[in-house]
Amino acid sequence: MIDHHCHGLVTRDLDRTGFEELLTEADTVSPLGTSLFDSSIGLAVRRWCAPVLDLPSYAPAEDYLARRAELGAAEVNRRLLRASGIDMFLVDDGFRAAELTTVDELGTLANARAERIIRLEAVAEQVLARTDATSFPDAFRAELAAQAPGAVGCKSIAAYRVGLELSGARPTDNEVRLAVPGQRRVAHPVLHRFLIWTGIDLGLPVQFHVGYGDRDIDLHRADPLLLTDLLRATEPAGVPILLLHNYPFQRNAAYLAQVFSHVFVDVGLATHNVGARAGAVLAELLELAPFGKVLFSSDAFGLAECYHLGSLLFRRALAEFLHAADVPATDAQRIGELLAGGNAERVYRLHQSTWAEAPNQSCHPS
Amino acid sequence: MIDHHCHGLVTRDLDRTGFEELLTEADTVSPLGTSLFDSSIGLAVRRWCAPVLDLPSYAPAEDYLARRAELGAAEVNRRLLRASGIDMFLVDDGFRAAELTTVDELGTLANARAERIIRLEAVAEQVLARTDATSFPDAFRAELAAQAPGAVGCKSIAAYRVGLELSGARPTDNEVRLAVPGQRRVAHPVLHRFLIWTGIDLGLPVQFHVGYGDRDIDLHRADPLLLTDLLRATEPAGVPILLLHNYPFQRNAAYLAQVFSHVFVDVGLATHNVGARAGAVLAELLELAPFGKVLFSSDAFGLAECYHLGSLLFRRALAEFLHAADVPATDAQRIGELLAGGNAERVYRLHQSTWAEAPNQSCHPS
Amino acid sequence: MIDHHCHGLVTRDLDRTGFEELLTEADTVSPLGTSLFDSSIGLAVRRWCAPVLDLPSYAPAEDYLARRAELGAAEVNRRLLRASGIDMFLVDDGFRAAELTTVDELGTLANARAERIIRLEAVAEQVLARTDATSFPDAFRAELAAQAPGAVGCKSIAAYRVGLELSGARPTDNEVRLAVPGQRRVAHPVLHRFLIWTGIDLGLPVQFHVGYGDRDIDLHRADPLLLTDLLRATEPAGVPILLLHNYPFQRNAAYLAQVFSHVFVDVGLATHNVGARAGAVLAELLELAPFGKVLFSSDAFGLAECYHLGSLLFRRALAEFLHAADVPATDAQRIGELLAGGNAERVYRLHQSTWAEAPNQSCHPS
Repeated sequence: MIDHHCHGLVTRDLDRTGFEELLTEADTVSPLGTSLFDSSIGLAVRRWCAPVLDLPSYAPAEDYLARRAELGAAEVNRRLLRASGIDMFLVDDGFRAAELTTVDELGTLANARAERIIRLEAVAEQVLARTDATSFPDAFRAELAAQAPGAVGCKSIAAYRVGLELSGARPTDNEVRLAVPGQRRVAHPVLHRFLIWTGIDLGLPVQFHVGYGDRDIDLHRADPLLLTDLLRATEPAGVPILLLHNYPFQRNAAYLAQVFSHVFVDVGLATHNVGARAGAVLAELLELAPFGKVLFSSDAFGLAECYHLGSLLFRRALAEFLHAADVPATDAQRIGELLAGGNAERVYRLHQSTWAEAPNQSCHPS
Repeated sequence: MIDHHCHGLVTRDLDRTGFEELLTEADTVSPLGTSLFDSSIGLAVRRWCAPVLDLPSYAPAEDYLARRAELGAAEVNRRLLRASGIDMFLVDDGFRAAELTTVDELGTLANARAERIIRLEAVAEQVLARTDATSFPDAFRAELAAQAPGAVGCKSIAAYRVGLELSGARPTDNEVRLAVPGQRRVAHPVLHRFLIWTGIDLGLPVQFHVGYGDRDIDLHRADPLLLTDLLRATEPAGVPILLLHNYPFQRNAAYLAQVFSHVFVDVGLATHNVGARAGAVLAELLELAPFGKVLFSSDAFGLAECYHLGSLLFRRALAEFLHAADVPATDAQRIGELLAGGNAERVYRLHQSTWAEAPNQSCHPS
Repeated sequence: MIDHHCHGLVTRDLDRTGFEELLTEADTVSPLGTSLFDSSIGLAVRRWCAPVLDLPSYAPAEDYLARRAELGAAEVNRRLLRASGIDMFLVDDGFRAAELTTVDELGTLANARAERIIRLEAVAEQVLARTDATSFPDAFRAELAAQAPGAVGCKSIAAYRVGLELSGARPTDNEVRLAVPGQRRVAHPVLHRFLIWTGIDLGLPVQFHVGYGDRDIDLHRADPLLLTDLLRATEPAGVPILLLHNYPFQRNAAYLAQVFSHVFVDVGLATHNVGARAGAVLAELLELAPFGKVLFSSDAFGLAECYHLGSLLFRRALAEFLHAADVPATDAQRIGELLAGGNAERVYRLHQSTWAEAPNQSCHPS
């Protein structure tokens, strides 16, 4: 399986609070609520991850955390990563990088190939820190071009900064210069559009954070339909646009994947957060999204549990969907291969690999 | 069954590309994706239409297309139309008419009654082509009044042109004159409102395209809730308003059907596109929509497969819903008759028929 | 069970029209539709309430109404209320109070504890009737402080008056004075924000009407995500915010409950209206909402059937959800107790009771 969007792992040991704070998109455990193990993802951890740590399914949370501490983070990460069955990770390394494993470290831990996805805003903010508004357009283009050969795609977090209602117009360099802020944080529609178009010009597939995320997002401004104008404008370039997460707007995203030739979708992050409901969520995506346009991602961040759950719940969800449609086994297998890795391989051109170290290794699930 | 919203058929033979281009709302088969048979609707065609062409269920796409070519479009259309069990078609003949069968041709092919739905914008554009702004209001009223006796309703595609956020105010003739564009294409909120009110004044049930459609639509501007003001304003007239398709906003549409006495809803187009998920979609509609307010439509366009799938998947979906609620057989039958045709018959007054050729024939499913 | 949001009962006998007008959020039975018994809630009444009135499940509507009349409203109300298994009612008594039982009358009828929720706008409108703009801020604060000891929370109906897109800024008294309308009806964002902040300052949990309601609401302005700014601004106060109903935006509400520490959610009103689909709706809420943040409410209004259905369908829905996730029995029971009453007890501090008459009685379901 190819996980086309994920982050690094936390390698330190975690106490209960540390674990729960990484479990969902909540920053903290609410003093007004109860343990975050009381949630769909909490149930899923106990059900599916406990056996990987030699505990019975649905072991109590305390037992799970005690066993986790006993094995140590390194062993836990190793077991859960390998249980995930993921053969290749495309890693966004531009967020809270200091706390997480690097791209290469993740690949080594999982004994799998790992490739980099460039977070556009992180690069822009690095460039802004060393240049002025006048030079910024050229400097950013040069920097992204320099980094591109070491990556398989790029990613925009415009959803977090200004929302997704972005015009399709390609900004001029002068417009970009006028939009460069006094400070380093990129949060201006013109700048996000500039970053995106620069990625497209380099032929880099562009991922978008869409929908569900932490409390910094205005979720109603992160509906993928708000990208409609930009999708119309970028389609002629023929560069893939990948809408990540999408929950709870997965039906909207699926519509876009059907009608725009360059749009691809996933339901990462939601898949493991909704636990036993992953089948319901993926099925909504597959109502309209052509199967050649749907990818697998975990959007795991920090906890190795999220890779294992993301992968396991995705496979179960897909099997449920195909079973409900009474799909013959040969078709089911073929469709499964598309979603689990074939589509990612084709879209990111992973055979034309930047993975110079092992160019002949198959990146396709066996 | 009464199909209260559909289009004509393509009668020419279709190659694979031609077939796939008509299969979903995508204009073309994406070079970045895979065959559009890899989709929920593609699976549904293979599962349910193949047997109508004497193939096993889930015959491969190539076999399906080969058999389709072998039988020829005329025979394929005849078989699938009759397999649909549709007794009456209400046909919107105002879109890409040159490529499709006429209202009467469709009725003849299906050996069924077929009635016309007038596409308001198509009439307005014909009138605009021959008149000036000053005369337009009177000329349009006269033209629609002239065409009304040959139709059972009218339809607005405001969703495609300006979105559904339409005020409820009835425009004055002077406002209409000011809104008449220099060119023939109607895309101004005042004009759409004028067309709609003219239909209401004639007592013609007014259909609205809502939600899912091809890439020309801004789907977030096609949420039926945006019609709330217009629905409040038009309710006193007592003329039915029919919200078509609605996907993925079917729950929103159902709410409107519950609280506004003149609002009716369907999930046509989505029903066949989502394939095995039709039950999930219809069930969402039936959460709030009173059963006396829900109609069947296929929104078939071009491919005879869409009539058969629309009808079959609708019936299966409804049966699933009633079974899940443990509804007794007599109630299930009565509710089925309402949705399949009874509601359409009442709303469009199909017994007070314009079907002069066969006024005594029952239009109710036997 | 603790019903944390409901209204009083109609105690008069009801004819068929009177019954149907209270059954859904429609004001009247449409002359264009059919009986409102033809609906998901109509089926649920026949299926689940008929046996409480000694009729077979799915007795015809006429038989149900005849038996209802025969027993008389008092006996019907008594039976259905007690069948509901609700031990405590938190009652919004600020809407159509003259037609309904009071808080105390409801408690007596049900042989259960009943506590008051203050409708903020009702209090504001009483104050506005006797004061001028200059005095209003102080007068409202004093009045709410005077009423607070007799209540366990307050409620905002901003959704009905101006929609939920409310800024998080706490208005100054001068801003409030400028916003006081010439008439008594509160419908100004500044005023709603002032009422809400006044409730928070008193430490009163604040309920919000969100989503589904009668036709006076603009449903697209009642999406809970529109409250995002206000939720960010109010979180530091640590006072619970309770998002009521939420349908069809339950996934959006669940997201807010996950990422904001002070946000709680329910799917009241929808639960009984959607009948056999209650499981589907609750499951969507439980995808992201931590189980310590989800409450039970019926939002029953007028008909005793709604308490019984609200309670029964909620319990069935939760059981379905837990069964689908294969949750062990001990966990299922514990989670059930949280949602059915434990969360409400904690959030509204119902043990630190204002229920002076019987301070030792348990408010927890046995």
